[in-house]
Formats: sequence, structure tokens, C-alpha cells
Amino acid sequence: MKIINGGICAPKGFLASAIEANIKYKNRTDMAMIFSKVPAISAGVYTTNLVKAAPVLWDRKITDSETVVNAIVINSGIANACTKDEGMEYCKQSAKKAADKLGVEEDSILLASTGVIGMQLPIDKICAGIESLSDSLEQGEKAANEAAKAIMTTDTVSKEVAIEFEISKKTVKMGAMCKGSGMIHPNMCTMLGFITTDVNISKELLLKALRDDVVDTFNMVSVDGDTSTNDSLIILANGLAENEKIVDENSEDYKVFKSNLNFVTTTLSKMIAGDGEGATALFEVVVEGAKTKETARTLAKSVVTSSLTKAAIFGHDANWGRILCALGYSGEKFDPDNMELYFESENGKILIYKDGVSVGFDEEKATKILSAKEVRALVKLNMGDFCATAWGCDLTFDYVKINADYRS
Amino acid sequence: MKIINGGICAPKGFLASAIEANIKYKNRTDMAMIFSKVPAISAGVYTTNLVKAAPVLWDRKITDSETVVNAIVINSGIANACTKDEGMEYCKQSAKKAADKLGVEEDSILLASTGVIGMQLPIDKICAGIESLSDSLEQGEKAANEAAKAIMTTDTVSKEVAIEFEISKKTVKMGAMCKGSGMIHPNMCTMLGFITTDVNISKELLLKALRDDVVDTFNMVSVDGDTSTNDSLIILANGLAENEKIVDENSEDYKVFKSNLNFVTTTLSKMIAGDGEGATALFEVVVEGAKTKETARTLAKSVVTSSLTKAAIFGHDANWGRILCALGYSGEKFDPDNMELYFESENGKILIYKDGVSVGFDEEKATKILSAKEVRALVKLNMGDFCATAWGCDLTFDYVKINADYRS
Repeated sequence: MKIINGGICAPKGFLASAIEANIKYKNRTDMAMIFSKVPAISAGVYTTNLVKAAPVLWDRKITDSETVVNAIVINSGIANACTKDEGMEYCKQSAKKAADKLGVEEDSILLASTGVIGMQLPIDKICAGIESLSDSLEQGEKAANEAAKAIMTTDTVSKEVAIEFEISKKTVKMGAMCKGSGMIHPNMCTMLGFITTDVNISKELLLKALRDDVVDTFNMVSVDGDTSTNDSLIILANGLAENEKIVDENSEDYKVFKSNLNFVTTTLSKMIAGDGEGATALFEVVVEGAKTKETARTLAKSVVTSSLTKAAIFGHDANWGRILCALGYSGEKFDPDNMELYFESENGKILIYKDGVSVGFDEEKATKILSAKEVRALVKLNMGDFCATAWGCDLTFDYVKINADYRS
Repeated sequence: MKIINGGICAPKGFLASAIEANIKYKNRTDMAMIFSKVPAISAGVYTTNLVKAAPVLWDRKITDSETVVNAIVINSGIANACTKDEGMEYCKQSAKKAADKLGVEEDSILLASTGVIGMQLPIDKICAGIESLSDSLEQGEKAANEAAKAIMTTDTVSKEVAIEFEISKKTVKMGAMCKGSGMIHPNMCTMLGFITTDVNISKELLLKALRDDVVDTFNMVSVDGDTSTNDSLIILANGLAENEKIVDENSEDYKVFKSNLNFVTTTLSKMIAGDGEGATALFEVVVEGAKTKETARTLAKSVVTSSLTKAAIFGHDANWGRILCALGYSGEKFDPDNMELYFESENGKILIYKDGVSVGFDEEKATKILSAKEVRALVKLNMGDFCATAWGCDLTFDYVKINADYRS
């Protein structure tokens, strides 16, 4: 496997475009389109929030069916959530517009929105935007970069990755882009994520791979504990790599596909966590030696979600008591008297807590370790063989600033 | 019922004291003692965190037994949590010291600590402190005020209340003090709370009253979503009011006692929420019309705990979408298309959302309502007859500041 350029346009047959539709933001792009030259199969995982945005309802119906997909239309600025019948009607109008322009079926168009909840989309601007997007579709790295920028809201950097790998001696490519950065929490964290690939795979296995993967990747990311109404992760596979179709979940080909998908989703998860609203550091929590996988996940997520721990990380303060505390209220059982806690970063590694008490560590060294851009807390439970990793960020003044008046 | 002065020293037979022991804070009191002239019965509810501080383990053994209680010794600055055998040994030494000085049994002394986790208590200072505390016990309002101040950590104001009411024509008094303000979350929120009363009641009903009450009061408070290792709420009843002993949970006397206890705990809960770390406003969330009490509680707590909602309250921003979102990810079922949402404060009341969409409210009026010191979100579910109230606060720059470097 190697990392390549080109984002979502890296795989064969995928084009993209981005334009300024003036939906809410001024002087920046705010709509993007992904298009596959040949119809693609799709799979999606969506927010578990009871309140689901209109485009989530629209997409789920399509990705859960056998219908092929030709394009995805995305807007930033307005979420089209809590918009009821009018919101659904705008989904239909948007899809119809794109379908007419691209010469495809209405139900082959997926939609995604991110931004303020409760506002109706300016449908005329959206339709005009779709027209421009359809006319300006392009292949290549630049088109992918522009699309990744257009879907940002409070993100400070655009997020994309692409790789190539071999399946049965054929070169397969996979590209992806996503946007974070607030309202991010386990159970679909990324507000919007899109993966394109030219692999040839059955619809059933594409969905299985995605579902099995997010449990350990996107769902292990937390920025602020809030699960959005719009979270969507969609993968399109158009088969243009011409590998022998993957149909057996026990095959080597499926394993290779899954491990490469995992690289892409892990990369995006860390990008989202590290660019959490106001974040100055990526905070990674690794729990090892748990009795079950689920225990490891729950404990890691509890620590990464703790506001007090996150504020301590911002202050480069080795306040390990807050980590013990967050492990303790997770609801999972473990033995605080038989575990170890380490802090780790590019600046070193330090044992902090063992056998029920602080080991009397060097505070200066700990602070130095916690001053890196990527900081890890490692918890060894010594109870079993399961481990899990969760990703988050520190809690900062800027998080509050960004969210005190987001709508204005 | 009427509100009176005197805090924990208001009920007959209760004395208090406070001193500077220099445990961690400088130039302020940091130890307090509550003493009952006659042995009192006790009840306690404690943190659900798996990691429990040494004094929690010490107290629970006593309040769960038939042993009477003579005094409570409290220190602020160091939590005596994650301190293992040494921490338990210091509990024993503290209790022995107090018992010797007061001429009572070692197991009639309750202990409470709040502050940094993982540090050992400076036991010599603690024992010297207990000596001074025992020598300076006093009755009256001033002693109670001083005790309430000594138990503060990052609290900005001390928190106490006292009331008197009648039970079977006898005057009964109840006093209380507590300290918040960080690491506050449902399932024992107050880090430390102490209630004194001269009522005559059976141990069984005292515990039942406390346990039934906290579900709707202390456990409905959230400042930051973190449940502390030290949370303790203890009530002492010494019987000096000489009312006929309350032994029947169906009696009028028990009902009167319970409703007065509820007034005291509700008052303290709101004080804790309103003085959450860095808070500029008390944020109250009322859920009405739920199918079950538990649903109402879960929904109210989900909103009051949402970082995004709390940041919006700080910004006086009527970002109701975040409230819908927080209701939606609570895990409870409701119909977003058949509910109403209002904002309310001393500055007025405004309908924001109804029948699945924003009602197109007056933003200026909404901002004015949200600019008050006490702000309420009222959710009407229209599904049943149950309601619940949760209390929290806004998320501010100061919260981050306080917690980025709490240990230094």
C-alpha cells in the first residue's frame, strides 16, 4: 500500500467540483459534487440521533437499496435538519436538478448537508449551484482539493487522503475526504465523510466492511460529546479497477480491502480529532489488556470524552487523577489497584500510576511530554487481551469562543 | 415552612468550626468540623464512580451500619482518592484523633475530602487541624458560615441554607451546606453535601428519604459531565426536636419531612449548578409531558450536559437546534414533530419550535431572555404526564481556564 495524491479523485472514473453558492458563507466555496463516470454501488452509515436531517433520510433509503449511485451533492452552511416536509421536498428538488443535468436517475443522487440546524435551504441558490457543479466537474488532484475545502464549516484545514494497493495483481485506489469538527461524538462522529474507490466488490461486502470498520474508527472519535443530526459516512465503489469481484468475506482479497479501508478511516478519524473545534492537540487514548473489546472501547471513549481531562491536556497538566476518575465512571469494571497509566508523545514516555498509587513521576518531564501536538494516554488493565484506541482533542478557550455564537 | 439563618448550626444541638490547616491552600480556611451534642443517626449516598476515595469507603461502612455519628471532619485541597492503603490508614488516624479529642468512639466520626486526586494527605497537619477544630466548636450562624467557606475549592460562593417547619406541632429545623463546582454530573453531583436536622426519625426512613430524593435533585445537576471519586451527601438527625419518632413511610409526618428535605436539596442543587466552574448563568431544563419519569429525566439531563448547548447559552444564542440534537441522541424515544420548545427567564418567555419546525421567533427577544442570570429551556413532549428538571450552567472561557491547570 502507498499513500498517493488526488483525494476522492484518485480512483479511476471519479470527478469532482466545488463552487461558491453563497448559502451562508461569503467569499468561499460552499457546495461540492462527486461524480462517478460509471454507476457505483454504495454503502452508508448514518447518525444514531433520533433527530435525523432530511438528507440522511434521503440517502439511507438509497444506500440501503440495490439502486446504483452516480453522484453526491454536498453543501455546507445549512444542515437541512429539523426542516420537516419542506426539507424533504428540497432534497427531492436538489436530486431532480442534478439528475436532469447529469442525465441520470433522480434516485442515483445522494445528498449531504452540514451547518446550522433548523434553517431551510435557499433552494434557488442550491439548484443554481448544482447546475454550475455539474458543468465544472473535473478529474485530478485539484478538483478533489477544492471539493474537500468546500465542505468545511469550522474546520481549520481540509481533510483528505488517498492510497493505492493491490488486489489480485490489479491496482486498486481509494480516496476520501471529510469534515469535522464540532458536534463530534462516538456513534458516527464525522459530520460528513466520503470515500471513493474503484474496487470491484459486492454491495453486501462493501456495507459489511464499512459497518465493521467504523466501530473502531469513526465511532471512537469524540470532540465534544454531541452526536450530530447529519452524520453520514458514504462509500462509493465503481469497479473500474477491474479486479475479480470480491464476494467472499473469508477471502484474502476482502481482508486486503478491509485493512486498506481501515487505514483510510483511521487517518480521517485522527484528522477530525486533531482538528476538533479550538483544539491545539490530538489526544489519543489507548486501553490495553481489557477482558473484552467492548470494555476497552468504553473505557477509552470515557477518558477521551471527559471535559476535565481534556482541559488538563490543554494545560499540559499531568492530572492523571481525572483519567482514573473518567475510567471509574465509565460503568465498566476494572481493578484500579492493578493497572498502569503512561503518558506518551514524540517527547518521550513516562509511567505515572501503578498498583493503585502515583509512582512519584518527574512533573517537568510529564509536562514536556504533554506539550506535543499529539499526546497519548496509555492504560494497561492487565485483565485480558483486548485493546481499543479513541481519539479526541483538548478543550480550549477557542472551543467556547467558536460555539458561544456559531449562528451569527 | 420558612427559611432561617444559621446553616448547619440552625438545628438544635449542632456545632461547627473551621480552621486554616495549610493543606494546599494558603491564607484561607481548609478544614471544618460538624458536631452533634448528642449522637445522631446518619444516612449517606455516595459516588457511583468505581474509583472511590478513601473517606467514601470509610463513611459508607458507618452510615450503612447502625452505628451513631458524633462528628464529621472535612478538608479541602486534597481528595484522598487513589491513595490506597496509605489513604485508608490516614482515615483511621484522622478518626482516632477526633474521637480521642471529643471523647467518642472512632467509628462515630465521618470524614470527607475534596481536592486533587492522587496526593497523600499531610497527616500531621490534618491531626493538628482536628485538634484545633475540636477546641473551637461553636454554635450559631457564624460558625456555620465559616464551615461552609472552609469546604470550598473552586467555588466562588459558599453554599448554605436552613429552614424550619412543623412536624406534629413541634418545630423541626434543617440546615445544610455543600460545595460544587467542577467534576459535577448526574449520579451524585455535589462533591460534598452535609445536612443536619434535629428531627426524630428512624434510620431506615432517613435513608429512604435521602435516596428517593437525590434522584430528582442532586443527580439532576451537571456541570461538566464528570462524576467525581469523592461525591458524598450525608445527613445527620439527632432527634432533639422531640417530635414523635417518624417510623411510617405513609404517615403525614414523613411526607412533611420529605417535602422539606426536597426544598433543601433543590436549593443546594441550584446553587451548585449556578456556581459551576466558570459559569455566568444557571441553566435549567424542564421536560414535561413524557411517557415515564425516567424518560423525562434522561432527556433533561442530556440537554443540560450538552457542551454545544451550554456554549450557546454562554453566547445568549437561541441555537435551539442543539437542544433538539441533544434530545435526539439521549437514547429516549419522542416525536420531534409533535413537541414544543420554549426559552424562559425573568426577561420573558418565547416559543421557539413547534410541529417539527422553528416558529420564526423574534431573535432579539430570545437573546434578551437568554441574557438573564437564570435561564430555562422548557420542552413539552405531549406524550404523557411525567416531568423532570435538570440543572446546569453555561460553558465559558473561565471553565477552561480553571481546569487547564487546576493542580498548580
